Amino acid sequence: MTGNGKGLVQVFTGNGKGKTTAALGTVLRAAGHGLRVFVIFFMKGNYDYGEFRTLARLPNVAMASFGFRKLTDPKNIKPEEIEQAKKAIAAARQAILDGHYDLVVLDEINVALGFNLIKLDEVVRLIKEKPDNVELILTGRYADAKVIELADLVTEMVKIKHPFDKGIKARKGIEY
Amino acid sequence: MTGNGKGLVQVFTGNGKGKTTAALGTVLRAAGHGLRVFVIFFMKGNYDYGEFRTLARLPNVAMASFGFRKLTDPKNIKPEEIEQAKKAIAAARQAILDGHYDLVVLDEINVALGFNLIKLDEVVRLIKEKPDNVELILTGRYADAKVIELADLVTEMVKIKHPFDKGIKARKGIEY
Repeated sequence: MTGNGKGLVQVFTGNGKGKTTAALGTVLRAAGHGLRVFVIFFMKGNYDYGEFRTLARLPNVAMASFGFRKLTDPKNIKPEEIEQAKKAIAAARQAILDGHYDLVVLDEINVALGFNLIKLDEVVRLIKEKPDNVELILTGRYADAKVIELADLVTEMVKIKHPFDKGIKARKGIEY
Repeated sequence: MTGNGKGLVQVFTGNGKGKTTAALGTVLRAAGHGLRVFVIFFMKGNYDYGEFRTLARLPNVAMASFGFRKLTDPKNIKPEEIEQAKKAIAAARQAILDGHYDLVVLDEINVALGFNLIKLDEVVRLIKEKPDNVELILTGRYADAKVIELADLVTEMVKIKHPFDKGIKARKGIEY
């Protein structure tokens, strides 16, 4: 798939900016080489995100978005949030095992796991059943130690400075 | 530019994967919202990179690439490398001051500075002269302390695990 090698498992985690964006950048690069990509957003819901528009334009790139735009409150998980996460896992499994895709991105799956919307076993199973030719990217803070252990490439995005700390809000076109 | 706010200065640095890719992901998102983007690659040269192909397809996204594909040896800087870096700085200045672009990405400018291909003063000047409406992203390891001080948003990509350590080489479609 990757032109010259076995597909790996990549994790982007940490409290800094750039986890989802790094995954999207990898998609942009992969699409340029004609790789077939499936991006699954676990906790994003439907909204007019800039990335959705561009992904929809790219050749050989498919996407599906689950969850809700509203941030999940880990102390008050709603049944519909669990249901969405289950659907996302099913979609992830299908994309990974499908045989059609070279790169599968599971955006915010680490958060879904950290919030117990999905089970560790399900994520481990996805990683272990991944065919050799598929590159898999998992993003989101709170990456589980077991996921890190199973991954080939792990990057922690560390916040050194963030304008949200100064009260600046997320900006259309940049943060979403 | 950003729809609802002032353009900031973002830095992606550190030894981990995801600096350039996070910048590219931001471009993908920005392009989806119709922002006008200029991406300047400082140390990449001309080659059939996957990201070049996709950037060329995106509406309102322009790019220019300087330097050479071959990695620069900081102990043996060549005059043509310095010349390319000067051209990249000039192009950066033009894009930032042009008035047309909402987002300008200066890819690997931190490395160019770290290797003394360009001067700190030149980078500081770019940041200070940036019009309020322009979002500026600087990527690359070795971000200078002064650049970090001037930036609004700084993320360090920290390598937790990297397959290159196991001898796996960069793969087409994924790393380039």
